[in-house]
Amino acid sequence: MLYQLPDRDIERFIEEDIPYGDLTTLLLGIGDLHGEITFTSREPTTLCCTEEAARILEKCGATVSFLLQSGTTVEPGVTILSANGSAGTLHAGWKVALNLLEYASGIATRTHKIVTLVKKVNPAITIVTTRKSFPGTKKIAIKAVMAGGALPHRLGLSESVLVFRQHIAFCGGLERFLQTVSELKAKSPEHKIIVEADSAEEALLIAAAGVDVVQIDKLQPEALSRLVEQLHRVAPGVKISAAGGITGENASVYAETGVDMLVLSSLYFGKPSDIAASITFLQP
Amino acid sequence: MLYQLPDRDIERFIEEDIPYGDLTTLLLGIGDLHGEITFTSREPTTLCCTEEAARILEKCGATVSFLLQSGTTVEPGVTILSANGSAGTLHAGWKVALNLLEYASGIATRTHKIVTLVKKVNPAITIVTTRKSFPGTKKIAIKAVMAGGALPHRLGLSESVLVFRQHIAFCGGLERFLQTVSELKAKSPEHKIIVEADSAEEALLIAAAGVDVVQIDKLQPEALSRLVEQLHRVAPGVKISAAGGITGENASVYAETGVDMLVLSSLYFGKPSDIAASITFLQP
Amino acid sequence: MLYQLPDRDIERFIEEDIPYGDLTTLLLGIGDLHGEITFTSREPTTLCCTEEAARILEKCGATVSFLLQSGTTVEPGVTILSANGSAGTLHAGWKVALNLLEYASGIATRTHKIVTLVKKVNPAITIVTTRKSFPGTKKIAIKAVMAGGALPHRLGLSESVLVFRQHIAFCGGLERFLQTVSELKAKSPEHKIIVEADSAEEALLIAAAGVDVVQIDKLQPEALSRLVEQLHRVAPGVKISAAGGITGENASVYAETGVDMLVLSSLYFGKPSDIAASITFLQP
Amino acid sequence: MLYQLPDRDIERFIEEDIPYGDLTTLLLGIGDLHGEITFTSREPTTLCCTEEAARILEKCGATVSFLLQSGTTVEPGVTILSANGSAGTLHAGWKVALNLLEYASGIATRTHKIVTLVKKVNPAITIVTTRKSFPGTKKIAIKAVMAGGALPHRLGLSESVLVFRQHIAFCGGLERFLQTVSELKAKSPEHKIIVEADSAEEALLIAAAGVDVVQIDKLQPEALSRLVEQLHRVAPGVKISAAGGITGENASVYAETGVDMLVLSSLYFGKPSDIAASITFLQP
Amino acid sequence: MLYQLPDRDIERFIEEDIPYGDLTTLLLGIGDLHGEITFTSREPTTLCCTEEAARILEKCGATVSFLLQSGTTVEPGVTILSANGSAGTLHAGWKVALNLLEYASGIATRTHKIVTLVKKVNPAITIVTTRKSFPGTKKIAIKAVMAGGALPHRLGLSESVLVFRQHIAFCGGLERFLQTVSELKAKSPEHKIIVEADSAEEALLIAAAGVDVVQIDKLQPEALSRLVEQLHRVAPGVKISAAGGITGENASVYAETGVDMLVLSSLYFGKPSDIAASITFLQP
Amino acid sequence: MLYQLPDRDIERFIEEDIPYGDLTTLLLGIGDLHGEITFTSREPTTLCCTEEAARILEKCGATVSFLLQSGTTVEPGVTILSANGSAGTLHAGWKVALNLLEYASGIATRTHKIVTLVKKVNPAITIVTTRKSFPGTKKIAIKAVMAGGALPHRLGLSESVLVFRQHIAFCGGLERFLQTVSELKAKSPEHKIIVEADSAEEALLIAAAGVDVVQIDKLQPEALSRLVEQLHRVAPGVKISAAGGITGENASVYAETGVDMLVLSSLYFGKPSDIAASITFLQP
Repeated sequence: MLYQLPDRDIERFIEEDIPYGDLTTLLLGIGDLHGEITFTSREPTTLCCTEEAARILEKCGATVSFLLQSGTTVEPGVTILSANGSAGTLHAGWKVALNLLEYASGIATRTHKIVTLVKKVNPAITIVTTRKSFPGTKKIAIKAVMAGGALPHRLGLSESVLVFRQHIAFCGGLERFLQTVSELKAKSPEHKIIVEADSAEEALLIAAAGVDVVQIDKLQPEALSRLVEQLHRVAPGVKISAAGGITGENASVYAETGVDMLVLSSLYFGKPSDIAASITFLQP
Repeated sequence: MLYQLPDRDIERFIEEDIPYGDLTTLLLGIGDLHGEITFTSREPTTLCCTEEAARILEKCGATVSFLLQSGTTVEPGVTILSANGSAGTLHAGWKVALNLLEYASGIATRTHKIVTLVKKVNPAITIVTTRKSFPGTKKIAIKAVMAGGALPHRLGLSESVLVFRQHIAFCGGLERFLQTVSELKAKSPEHKIIVEADSAEEALLIAAAGVDVVQIDKLQPEALSRLVEQLHRVAPGVKISAAGGITGENASVYAETGVDMLVLSSLYFGKPSDIAASITFLQP
Repeated sequence: MLYQLPDRDIERFIEEDIPYGDLTTLLLGIGDLHGEITFTSREPTTLCCTEEAARILEKCGATVSFLLQSGTTVEPGVTILSANGSAGTLHAGWKVALNLLEYASGIATRTHKIVTLVKKVNPAITIVTTRKSFPGTKKIAIKAVMAGGALPHRLGLSESVLVFRQHIAFCGGLERFLQTVSELKAKSPEHKIIVEADSAEEALLIAAAGVDVVQIDKLQPEALSRLVEQLHRVAPGVKISAAGGITGENASVYAETGVDMLVLSSLYFGKPSDIAASITFLQP
Repeated sequence: MLYQLPDRDIERFIEEDIPYGDLTTLLLGIGDLHGEITFTSREPTTLCCTEEAARILEKCGATVSFLLQSGTTVEPGVTILSANGSAGTLHAGWKVALNLLEYASGIATRTHKIVTLVKKVNPAITIVTTRKSFPGTKKIAIKAVMAGGALPHRLGLSESVLVFRQHIAFCGGLERFLQTVSELKAKSPEHKIIVEADSAEEALLIAAAGVDVVQIDKLQPEALSRLVEQLHRVAPGVKISAAGGITGENASVYAETGVDMLVLSSLYFGKPSDIAASITFLQP
Repeated sequence: MLYQLPDRDIERFIEEDIPYGDLTTLLLGIGDLHGEITFTSREPTTLCCTEEAARILEKCGATVSFLLQSGTTVEPGVTILSANGSAGTLHAGWKVALNLLEYASGIATRTHKIVTLVKKVNPAITIVTTRKSFPGTKKIAIKAVMAGGALPHRLGLSESVLVFRQHIAFCGGLERFLQTVSELKAKSPEHKIIVEADSAEEALLIAAAGVDVVQIDKLQPEALSRLVEQLHRVAPGVKISAAGGITGENASVYAETGVDMLVLSSLYFGKPSDIAASITFLQP
Repeated sequence: MLYQLPDRDIERFIEEDIPYGDLTTLLLGIGDLHGEITFTSREPTTLCCTEEAARILEKCGATVSFLLQSGTTVEPGVTILSANGSAGTLHAGWKVALNLLEYASGIATRTHKIVTLVKKVNPAITIVTTRKSFPGTKKIAIKAVMAGGALPHRLGLSESVLVFRQHIAFCGGLERFLQTVSELKAKSPEHKIIVEADSAEEALLIAAAGVDVVQIDKLQPEALSRLVEQLHRVAPGVKISAAGGITGENASVYAETGVDMLVLSSLYFGKPSDIAASITFLQP
């Protein structure tokens, strides 16, 4: 089972949408009638945040009767989550729960599709995602990426070593920086040293310097294939990742280049999953 | 000038990405060198959250020297924001600021484009957005929608009256509900009564009952054009909005139907704006 | 059922009063003895926040055995809430729960009284409340207003359009502003346009300009009665609200003027309800 | 100077009222015009939270040019606070600042009046306030009480020892409890031992047992006068406080009884101060 | 039973350690297997925060089956807490719960030992602790001090009166300050007036001025013994506390001096308790 | 420069100690007099959180005039931080700032000492710290560790792979787990695979299986020396870390064993640094 979002987030999502209750339900005077809500897939979907959607409904006062776990992949027409409670309760939680389900499952579904796709071409490849999720949504985004079968490339700046050209600018240039790689490795023996390369030439220099991972930015697949071969000759143990502009459309081609990892941002955005929510009145 | 996000959010965005500083900069020992960061548009962009991006850089310790205001539309190659400070400072704030800028400007740019487009067809039309922003991001999303020239349709459940079929299910059906419309209007004289219609037939019944706005869900443009004419005959004062599946592609066609408003969710998601960030070392 | 305050508020109320436990109970060494707490009305009371008072007691470790729902109106001597638990538990929650109950029920009771009173004079009238609740207490205050049978006039600045003279100062004066009313209505077709009038003359001009609601500030009832008649002639569809200095004492007189709404701040402050709390020792 | 509320509270007050900016100002398109806001007393007022009102305006983007300090007492017609900025800025902060000023100054003014009043009768008397402030407002309420010249009786349950009958219920009755008073004093040598008495008889027993303060609940002034004399005979060093139902009306009479302290809740509620806020357009 | 930490803290501790789940468990694919966790003392321990450790495990999804209450003192080898759940659940909560238990019990154990020790020498003495707990940990630290049988000297600056030389610097020197003591006592009749003395001479002057407690900073035990006798002659009712550099090693000697209280900071820091945590796989 | 703690933490530290101002200063009536505060080292100290101490004083209203940066090592008698302001301001911030300085510098000083010590014996060795900081203090603790010249071993469970015996229990035992190491490495090519060994035998098996780092728990230095040699033969590229019971006393001996890293928890606790704070009255 994947990690759960804290209660604080659950409450924040509810307050964002219904800070002072549902005015429409109040004015209609229907709040105390009893009903049922059911969420159903409308397309092939890898689910995420069903647990949190359930907790949203429960915080609003409903009772959850059925739930598929995050990470489950369903065909269209499958019941994902059901709950019952007063009309006031169901209307309070409906769209908050649905919205979370749709955004999180959108990421999970995109991830699952691309993981499935590239594994056909290259079963040993790993899909990882960048830090570029929508500000304030990392807890959802990382859970969704994991639900879809990928992993975060790095969670942030504090726990991993990735040297960008923007760092190297302060190190006296690439050449001087590369002379310090072994020192860098000694300073932090528990972290892999990852260095970004902006060209094939740079990549070869970087790999030769003994880094653990060379991350190649925006190289076309063909050139990348050639480079991978060269890198394997120059630095047999180095891991190679490709980043920059990789999406569902071109991921397979990139996977065929022989790199060890694809680093994507594109999984984080795009259309949310399409999930139906029906609310029915339960006659007493 | 649009509203500013609270400090709490600014700090949350930073902590999400760099809870304990930038390990790479620390290990490289470059933190105290001085540099400059510049953000530049790579495509036509309607900016949003430049103020917040600037505050992120300032919280990280940089000094902002230039800034275009949210709501500005720029061509490619335009400088959006500049700041200078220590390398540690710039690396800490770089991607947090960039990521916020790109997501917020993505929404603003999509909004601005669609507003410009539909106003050509129908200058009196209003573009409004639904509640379906990414959970936890409403402060950013609504600012971006406003920066792009649209408005939120409703901010949440607590401040507006919108009757969905899911409410009507508890009211004894549409007919019985429509008998209560005048009572509903009397109960809340300061709110417009908005009712969703799932078909042309329903729309006509709803309008005839005296509601303020009838919101028509997922009707094809052609049918919608005919319906708008009929509604104007049946209920001359009623406002008409179209919702469901409206995107940048079909918005113009919907605008031609003569409705008063288009209600969209699609502005909230999609590709973030592409903005370049360059960091340069300033020789002392 | 009305909306519930988030857990975060429940915890905040408890911490405000007992950040590090009840020192007296600790020193007396009585914390583990078992007892019962009962809250009883001492005067006619419209209850509010009984659910939250119960949750306070539960967070402190007690078990709630009885509870009347928010919105219930009781005579003196009626049991409102009962719970049992250890003496430590009951002493921790006692005054926090009581205090919340008394302040919230104070607002609900004042609201209920005035609603009952004015409805006798004018059954169609609506009582609404301003934004002027005690800073930081809006979640409680709005719930209490709803429990008493009224509604918020507006929740804040972000979701409604109310033009004050302080806005008009920047619009080139009233006359120029009134020329823009139809444009304003077109810009935001889902919001009613409400404009404040500081005199009868202004009210007539404002109503004639086609606004949805004219809000008349601090006009004496007699003058107001005459004005209402004139307004109905000049602008038959306009809704009229009276604001400024309306309290329990003069509300009936204002209701007789024929206005559609009374806008009050006075419900938010005043004496809390008087509710008795008894704690008894349950012999083991 | 009194303590300042934390930024978090300042932001919370703003968000409570204008979570997504001022819609009216936005629709009117006046946000960027320049203006000035001035707050002026309309009645004799002891000010509180002028510093926080200023910080609200600053957080909204205005520049504060004048400010009287919390604790200042002013006649009607005195300027309290001035600021200038864009119309958007002033409209955002106006009512949030005003509302805080009015509620806090209301408490400070009631406190100041009663302190002045009772000191005439009994210069040595101390006015203290109970824990019964509006839930969630203690930071404001205690500052206001101090601004008015009184002190909190106790801030909460964790830092003082006050034995209520509700504690004694678990101690085997008053008599048995009183046998433990010296032990209680030894256990906590830095806290005064305060015990509530519900009758004159109880008060005499309690004082005789050696407590530091006897707090007499709801005794009529005449009976209280007689009791104070007896207590001074029985236990010369004991401090005597009167609590329960003391308000601005009867405080002087209670002060004449010779008690050392009056314990009030009534200062916390009642009408907010009446403060005028004018916003003027500054021609460029 | 002692007070419980709020949920917010429980969530904060978990997020501090596992913001996005346990990567190791995820990669190993063992998360759904079932297991049991047991915490066992490895040395004589006075337990604290067992309730919170249990809540950490429950928040992570485990079911707690056994728990000893905070304040219990155990010998080595005693089971403190047991829970069962999925491997994912147990690995998530394990170290967060253990770490809290060990730090809190470390304080409680040091406190219990010293309380036991000094009570042998001087049964009437009271052990109290200063405000100098690790920033941000007061909720844990005070609970632990209480679990060990001591009390906080003061919780902070807002609820007690302790005059330091740093205050006196602004009062025109000690002599002038001492002339205001009776006024100070009158101003705040419910608080004891505590004054710090930096030498025996100062202590005698302070006591003679009529304060409630004289707190003697860093006087050697022998000199302190003599001073206590003198103080009892000069000011029979005054309470005497010793502060500054008192630890487990010298507390007994200080207790023998006849002071009423020992004020310590040293209990807050030092080695956490050593508690074993075993996790076992439960075959299905 | 090291990272700064967020404002939210600064406010939390202040509120923890002075939620409602300094009662003593208020009662003494000295709050508006002007003074200066100076912090001075009393022993050799590696400073940490001077920036945050300065911000605490500034939040309380003081003006900081001098400040040494975190990471600076000073001899006794050196001025660390100076500020001036009103007596109210200085008394509010004094102990909050001092307490943070002393705890953070305590950790930094212990770290600096041990780093200096072991580097003499083995210049290539790295000191890293475990996750076992006091719950809720990680932001301070990690900054202090970095200020002292060490690094965190891992920040938490979400960003690194460390396999404990408690994981292996769910993997079918060590042998079966070791068969999956290459798969584990492939799944997460950007993380080093670290495995804990409880004996020399285990360490050899683990290293032979191709892990990146073997972490050896609680092996005596002599045995460890022998093991390191064997490991270098068996698995030349493996990094070796020693953990469990390493402190300032035995770190040098452990450093001589030839391991690459020492993993310590003991730096997090122990005596805070001793820093003097003097407050002086500045005559106007």
